[in-house]
Amino acid sequence: MTNNPTTEVLSKPLEDPLAYLPHSTVCDYSKNRTVYDQDQPSTSLYLVIEGKVKVCRLARSGNQVVMDIYQTDEFFGESALLGLSQCRTEMAIAMENTKLMAWTTGQIDDIVARRPLLAVGLLQLLVQRSEFFGQRIESFSVDNIPRRLVRALLRFSERMGSAHEDGSVEMTAFTHELLAQYVGSTREIVTQYMNQFRRQGYLLYSRKGIILRPEMLREMLKPESLAA
Amino acid sequence: MTNNPTTEVLSKPLEDPLAYLPHSTVCDYSKNRTVYDQDQPSTSLYLVIEGKVKVCRLARSGNQVVMDIYQTDEFFGESALLGLSQCRTEMAIAMENTKLMAWTTGQIDDIVARRPLLAVGLLQLLVQRSEFFGQRIESFSVDNIPRRLVRALLRFSERMGSAHEDGSVEMTAFTHELLAQYVGSTREIVTQYMNQFRRQGYLLYSRKGIILRPEMLREMLKPESLAA
Repeated sequence: MTNNPTTEVLSKPLEDPLAYLPHSTVCDYSKNRTVYDQDQPSTSLYLVIEGKVKVCRLARSGNQVVMDIYQTDEFFGESALLGLSQCRTEMAIAMENTKLMAWTTGQIDDIVARRPLLAVGLLQLLVQRSEFFGQRIESFSVDNIPRRLVRALLRFSERMGSAHEDGSVEMTAFTHELLAQYVGSTREIVTQYMNQFRRQGYLLYSRKGIILRPEMLREMLKPESLAA
Repeated sequence: MTNNPTTEVLSKPLEDPLAYLPHSTVCDYSKNRTVYDQDQPSTSLYLVIEGKVKVCRLARSGNQVVMDIYQTDEFFGESALLGLSQCRTEMAIAMENTKLMAWTTGQIDDIVARRPLLAVGLLQLLVQRSEFFGQRIESFSVDNIPRRLVRALLRFSERMGSAHEDGSVEMTAFTHELLAQYVGSTREIVTQYMNQFRRQGYLLYSRKGIILRPEMLREMLKPESLAA
């Protein structure tokens, strides 16, 4: 298997788009400021330099559906690559004071023409994003609300938390409203489960945010737990 | 607005990856044959020449969750672009006798180095796929089962149906099992709603498959219909 040339090509490290993008001007967005929305669709690919950005869709009901939260060194706004002709319902909002870099689609096209590996890196980033959306569609299909909530907490803690020596992970406490917009439920139901998780000792609120016990949360995802 | 150079760049037509890919050998897959799965992960990007392919994820419960169905001139298997190192749970199955072309990741890398617009085309394809997955996550978040089913029927009929003069659309009748794997429900519940839709005159079964009335189905998506 290791002599198979295909395997060698495929097992090489992923391309980092950042290695191929020149620095651009850094723009500041104060907390709650909109980066783009339906009225001002994204014309650029964005990189978070500092802060956090929530990307969501506005459902016809007026509900926000959170697609993901992006932090330092993460890209968002890739829908710009389709051009303005596409109908889009996505919006991006700074969740705290945030610094962003941006490259227009035209700039990206120019760089790709000179440095094709940028396109390969962006392609791999998009495939990872598709894979993640696939996981969420799977979770929406087969998981009940508490399981979806556990998966959300685990994912955010892995990406955004800092681990303590005892295995617990501390991170910003997202509002129950935001978690509800992510798992497709209501704030009230999320509050009910978050209180239950706290009573069970799976999480606790600290001065800085929230402390999670990932190993206990992972137990809850075993087939026999949290039956619908 | 029309004098804005950014707008001009963004409003140009999308790149067609097919224009940059050389022909590859056509492989035949008989009905129900697996193209790739967890044991034999995808190492290639595939193009459907003839037939239909179901791409799904195998949830831990053993349930299949259908991501999408691909037909002639559509690509699938893009997870190969991440390399074998990634943990993948996706599988692809021929739904009927199917002909496919395939390009390994190594071949794609080589072509991209010479023809960067292939990467731009694939990137746009992936962004469209992300946008579609985003729509599905939104639907799972805010729609009840009959609404999800109506959206599935409309989408499949738009992509795979042939229109009659009276506005109705005829297409292959997918099994209720498959529709259930797509909307995240059970076969029994899908059968119940499909029977209801038939009694209401929104669809009927024909010798060749199913005839849908898209304008009536679209009515059902209005906020006042199909309340949860």
